[in-house]
Amino acid sequence: MKLFTERGFNGCSVQDITEAAVVPKGSFYNHFKSKEALAAEIVTEYGKGSTDRSILNNPEVPALTRLKRHFAALNEYFSRCNDGCLVGKFMAEVSDETPLIREMLLSVLNVWGEQISAAIAEGQEQGTIRTDLKADDLAAFLIDSYEGAILRTRVEKSPKALKYFVKVVFSSIIV
Amino acid sequence: MKLFTERGFNGCSVQDITEAAVVPKGSFYNHFKSKEALAAEIVTEYGKGSTDRSILNNPEVPALTRLKRHFAALNEYFSRCNDGCLVGKFMAEVSDETPLIREMLLSVLNVWGEQISAAIAEGQEQGTIRTDLKADDLAAFLIDSYEGAILRTRVEKSPKALKYFVKVVFSSIIV
Repeated sequence: MKLFTERGFNGCSVQDITEAAVVPKGSFYNHFKSKEALAAEIVTEYGKGSTDRSILNNPEVPALTRLKRHFAALNEYFSRCNDGCLVGKFMAEVSDETPLIREMLLSVLNVWGEQISAAIAEGQEQGTIRTDLKADDLAAFLIDSYEGAILRTRVEKSPKALKYFVKVVFSSIIV
Repeated sequence: MKLFTERGFNGCSVQDITEAAVVPKGSFYNHFKSKEALAAEIVTEYGKGSTDRSILNNPEVPALTRLKRHFAALNEYFSRCNDGCLVGKFMAEVSDETPLIREMLLSVLNVWGEQISAAIAEGQEQGTIRTDLKADDLAAFLIDSYEGAILRTRVEKSPKALKYFVKVVFSSIIV
């Protein structure tokens, strides 16, 4: 996971991976059919979250506050970790030659989308989030925008884009 | 440009490039110091736009209309071209080992940012764009969000995310 997050799917070889794991290269294929098969499992694992995603569904906290806390936690994480997001990197690399990765990315995007959409829908019911946009659409938009912001942080070598994301989203899109 | 856009920086080799160009591999190094040197020049070329960016500064059209037309043209382009955006892909791959690419990406992001920011600032003066967000911040946010949406289209094999982008942006952020 560490190597794939740092370098992306095409940026590291099975040999890089077995060297980092200090195991013989041949043993890799006892466990995984291909580099793609390993990468697909890693996408699922990574999708469980770099931060505590249960923040999003804590029923004791108002929905808008949960969304703010979720992105604040992500900002904190991605401001420290300069490697970017494995999901965003793999999204940029996915092609018809990597159908397994594509399938797992779809699944992670759907899970993240449902978690955020549920919080948005609750906020809409609670009257704290605008109701003229569908919760699902808005959730997908937020995920895409955040992935784009993470990409920029690595080019600018600055977490500024993550702060703008929070500022723009919570001052205009959401409310 | 075609190969890099399809496969990203790490996804193609100098040999892939010289084969596609039907030239001997050795001749590559008469023209470019490295694959990175070629890629950096291509970023600059690509940054001139897949679509006509002069839409953004046509003084005869109201600024908000220009922004809408710009993203409509991009949507039209990226709905047809399934390879995604070279800049977004390179943003995902950039690392300390590719400082030339990073520098050229920064420069393209700045040019795009200035073009969009100028239109936003004009729209703010014309009273059609909200003034509580800084034009520069909003421009960077729009670029990042759009790059993220393009990434999703390749995972979903659908241009849906591009339509959501336009819907969310022009119904909330901008006005």
